[in-house]
Amino acid sequence: MTKQVLIPRLCVIGVGLIGGSLARALREAGEVGEVVGSGRGEENLRAALRLGVVDRYELDPARAVVDADVVVIAVPLGAIEPVLRAIAPYLKPTTVVTDVGSAKGDVVADVERIYGHVPANFVPGHPIAGTERSGVEASFATLFQGRRVILTPLAETAASAHHLIKRMWEQTGAEVVDMGVRHHDAVLAATSHLPHMLAYTLVDTLARLDDRAEIFRYAAGGFRDFSRIASSDPKMWHDICIANREQLLEMISLFSADLTRLAEAIRSDDRAAILATFQRAKRARDNLYLD
Amino acid sequence: MTKQVLIPRLCVIGVGLIGGSLARALREAGEVGEVVGSGRGEENLRAALRLGVVDRYELDPARAVVDADVVVIAVPLGAIEPVLRAIAPYLKPTTVVTDVGSAKGDVVADVERIYGHVPANFVPGHPIAGTERSGVEASFATLFQGRRVILTPLAETAASAHHLIKRMWEQTGAEVVDMGVRHHDAVLAATSHLPHMLAYTLVDTLARLDDRAEIFRYAAGGFRDFSRIASSDPKMWHDICIANREQLLEMISLFSADLTRLAEAIRSDDRAAILATFQRAKRARDNLYLD
Repeated sequence: MTKQVLIPRLCVIGVGLIGGSLARALREAGEVGEVVGSGRGEENLRAALRLGVVDRYELDPARAVVDADVVVIAVPLGAIEPVLRAIAPYLKPTTVVTDVGSAKGDVVADVERIYGHVPANFVPGHPIAGTERSGVEASFATLFQGRRVILTPLAETAASAHHLIKRMWEQTGAEVVDMGVRHHDAVLAATSHLPHMLAYTLVDTLARLDDRAEIFRYAAGGFRDFSRIASSDPKMWHDICIANREQLLEMISLFSADLTRLAEAIRSDDRAAILATFQRAKRARDNLYLD
Repeated sequence: MTKQVLIPRLCVIGVGLIGGSLARALREAGEVGEVVGSGRGEENLRAALRLGVVDRYELDPARAVVDADVVVIAVPLGAIEPVLRAIAPYLKPTTVVTDVGSAKGDVVADVERIYGHVPANFVPGHPIAGTERSGVEASFATLFQGRRVILTPLAETAASAHHLIKRMWEQTGAEVVDMGVRHHDAVLAATSHLPHMLAYTLVDTLARLDDRAEIFRYAAGGFRDFSRIASSDPKMWHDICIANREQLLEMISLFSADLTRLAEAIRSDDRAAILATFQRAKRARDNLYLD
């Protein structure tokens, strides 16, 4: 007698770092039957097949989703809407669909626009994991171990669909938490989207100085760590800016006001204010991490 | 016949991470005779003696510098001026004095105020090295290996004094480069001082949000690296803000204008501008480091 796997047929659209790692993890956990890949780059899909990440692939996502139990949309944020539109007519009513986008409000709005409502079997999700690398070659089964996956189910979401996606991510070693859509986007704007904007802007500001060659020669220590995230994929972060515009702009505005306040304290020689800012920040940082 | 060491008597005022590591490195290189320590914390000086970093110590810097061949002032920036004032009457004419401050214009101004001119035997210096730790217990002989030390000699600086300090730092395994005072301060404002302001401000902005507890719970990956420098010593960075005020404010102003421009591009949905910014930054970062 064969053990019933959690997901007899999994369809992964976008077999990159995230989609590929999820497929690998579920296979290692023995909780997936067939894995069908889809995506725009056939070379990447051929690599996924060769690496055993998928059992077969379909270039057309509409064909890939046929008879799938779970469809994971793991394409960049800006490509989710056309994928949703392409697969909508071909999903069977029991197929559960989830995504991995870094901003959830925009994805939910896409779904509402396409369906006129949020289908009960759609579960928006976001694994807080990744590296600066991309593509199926960079994927690995342990990517999600000990990481958090945020699900943002809606009032319309079926409990069974929510439960299945939760169980799916738990098989990868991740801790799954639920959050409201807007709250997710606010938390991510603060902890991830804003820091990326600062790193990109800092490197760009320095790169446009007249003595940039010399500047970068002396960029040591802290700057190296600080600017690492400016190596992230520009297209992916462009998409995130568009998708989480409102909350990101609010965080940039808060940060800018605080930076202006610090500059004013420096200009007016308000030493107590400067010291207080640094002390508050150090205390918060040291309480946050032990390194 | 005993080999003539480079520095028969070295006086280190401020035997912390930098001062202690320099003394250790010169001792390991066999290029120092006696090491005399001084500083405000007697407990730290006692530890320096116990660890063999110094041969003896004097609480009063005026007594510590007597008959020294080289005096290294390795106290925080804000404490350099009183130390210079205290030791000035007790230096013999041949004693070479250097410092390790992260901003040079302010130190040179202190020297000019105290002496009415810049003495020929004063060589302003800045080793680009350090960790988030401090105190003599954190010091180690290899701290400067492969790191850069910037010297900013002035028109008045004697070639012999400049040469001796250059040789001293080379014994630690550092690469020594010369730079103008203003240019040093501009380069450091861009590559070190500005990034620290951004990290402190970011952590402080987030720490003052209503949902800060939850925010910090989801602060992963990039944020950890990005915010590490916000753990640096608040008093030290307060001193740097004061000492390099003008150039730091100029860099903050350039950065703020660029961040505002990015926010405007996001607000007005100028996707080409957003993407171009991220692409320029990624290219600059990737050309800078190979990781």
